[in-house]
Amino acid sequence: MTELRPPYVTHRRIAFSQTDMAGIVHFSNYYKWMEETEHDFFRSRGLNIMERQPDGTYIGWPRVNATCHFQAPVHYDEIIECRLLVERIGAKSLTFLIEFWREETRVAWGRMKSACCICRTDGTLTSILIPERYLTCLETPPR
Amino acid sequence: MTELRPPYVTHRRIAFSQTDMAGIVHFSNYYKWMEETEHDFFRSRGLNIMERQPDGTYIGWPRVNATCHFQAPVHYDEIIECRLLVERIGAKSLTFLIEFWREETRVAWGRMKSACCICRTDGTLTSILIPERYLTCLETPPR
Amino acid sequence: MTELRPPYVTHRRIAFSQTDMAGIVHFSNYYKWMEETEHDFFRSRGLNIMERQPDGTYIGWPRVNATCHFQAPVHYDEIIECRLLVERIGAKSLTFLIEFWREETRVAWGRMKSACCICRTDGTLTSILIPERYLTCLETPPR
Amino acid sequence: MTELRPPYVTHRRIAFSQTDMAGIVHFSNYYKWMEETEHDFFRSRGLNIMERQPDGTYIGWPRVNATCHFQAPVHYDEIIECRLLVERIGAKSLTFLIEFWREETRVAWGRMKSACCICRTDGTLTSILIPERYLTCLETPPR
Repeated sequence: MTELRPPYVTHRRIAFSQTDMAGIVHFSNYYKWMEETEHDFFRSRGLNIMERQPDGTYIGWPRVNATCHFQAPVHYDEIIECRLLVERIGAKSLTFLIEFWREETRVAWGRMKSACCICRTDGTLTSILIPERYLTCLETPPR
Repeated sequence: MTELRPPYVTHRRIAFSQTDMAGIVHFSNYYKWMEETEHDFFRSRGLNIMERQPDGTYIGWPRVNATCHFQAPVHYDEIIECRLLVERIGAKSLTFLIEFWREETRVAWGRMKSACCICRTDGTLTSILIPERYLTCLETPPR
Repeated sequence: MTELRPPYVTHRRIAFSQTDMAGIVHFSNYYKWMEETEHDFFRSRGLNIMERQPDGTYIGWPRVNATCHFQAPVHYDEIIECRLLVERIGAKSLTFLIEFWREETRVAWGRMKSACCICRTDGTLTSILIPERYLTCLETPPR
Repeated sequence: MTELRPPYVTHRRIAFSQTDMAGIVHFSNYYKWMEETEHDFFRSRGLNIMERQPDGTYIGWPRVNATCHFQAPVHYDEIIECRLLVERIGAKSLTFLIEFWREETRVAWGRMKSACCICRTDGTLTSILIPERYLTCLETPPR
């Protein structure tokens, strides 16, 4: 993260149920934290990740892809800092860069791309252009 | 998967608790399935993903990174086929290519790299060369 | 289970991600298995646990309560047998008795009560009488 | 909770991944929150739920049983208050009464009994008397 602009930051404490028999956090949790950090960021901008429309459908943000690189094991009760940058605002999708830090150590980092979609109650999805009011709430992306 | 050699294949049925309020499978489950497919593959080769050593430590395979691309939503009660190829056998790590199919549709695919490590009971890890007996059990990688 | 009539039986293998740093299965998984066994039982009777109605609502079976008693720890890669008995068919709810066995050892057992409900797409629920066609599919309960 | 003495209280916000296709929180999450509230309570008393001993074993608190009654559905992004009372301090176990509130509505409540155990790194457990220093940290139980 060489950007001058500061990332969006949250913290979380590792729960016992998030560890596995190797004594460390199970790697699948990082993807949930990437999503939760994205959702916290949306909330901080006055946006909702699952916005009900008058016709009963929702505007949601399902994942296109998500990658994570694991650099150091994390343990029960430790506190990690989640740092999010909006890396790219596309016509129909957002790409986030997310890092996980435990004090001075970066323990993991990854990217997640989410597509703006109409989500119907029967579980079908259709990709749409990101509505204007979302764009005005999201800040200018890092150059 | 343009390889001539056949992938290792397992199937799983989507559980209710794996869906989310969008009515589809939550994306974090795919990473668990990548791992479970890897473990099933190990078992099919007579290997154990967490092998206890005489000194009380374990030989384990923590993730270096994992990526998944999501192409079509999957729903409760559907059955998906998980196809695994060993893409690369490195000196200290394995890279798997994994695809998820629902009948004739590829719904997701990804890569996972696992490092061979000594896992101690205090939650510390040390990367090691893959032991010879693992290599003889794993097949020749796809060219 | 002193009933003469045989329970509905399924099996499952413990996944790595279901263990915790104590080296055993995390207790929250048993509640998921209770649900999955219920759903497997429904499927075996030709029923669907989440049945879409013509008006877009669903007939579902949210939990009223669930209890589990843990008697022996279970470990990675072990296979457990899940045994389900319909203990009581009420006017609006079903009560299941579920046991978990590893070979000759009962490792856990519990009860789960599920209420028949109309589930709307806005997340609201209304309890209803169990429809006749469900009752004909479910067997006579143990006395 | 008719006790005069105040419960131990924490709050948590519902994550998207904790919902299911019925649009509400999946019931298995309540058991994780019961555990997390217990662990937060331990931490607030200066205790650790998984305490490493000089011989490499741990003093841990696996569950004997856990029950939860579900009274109202909870949705994404809602905030619930978790209230814990130590209901009984036995010779070898603790019983907690835990309630979940969303503003003025009690949405769920349950009991959890945890046994004080020596946890070995091979996944075996032995029940022990609760050590004196734990008892001095835990408060007098409600009459």
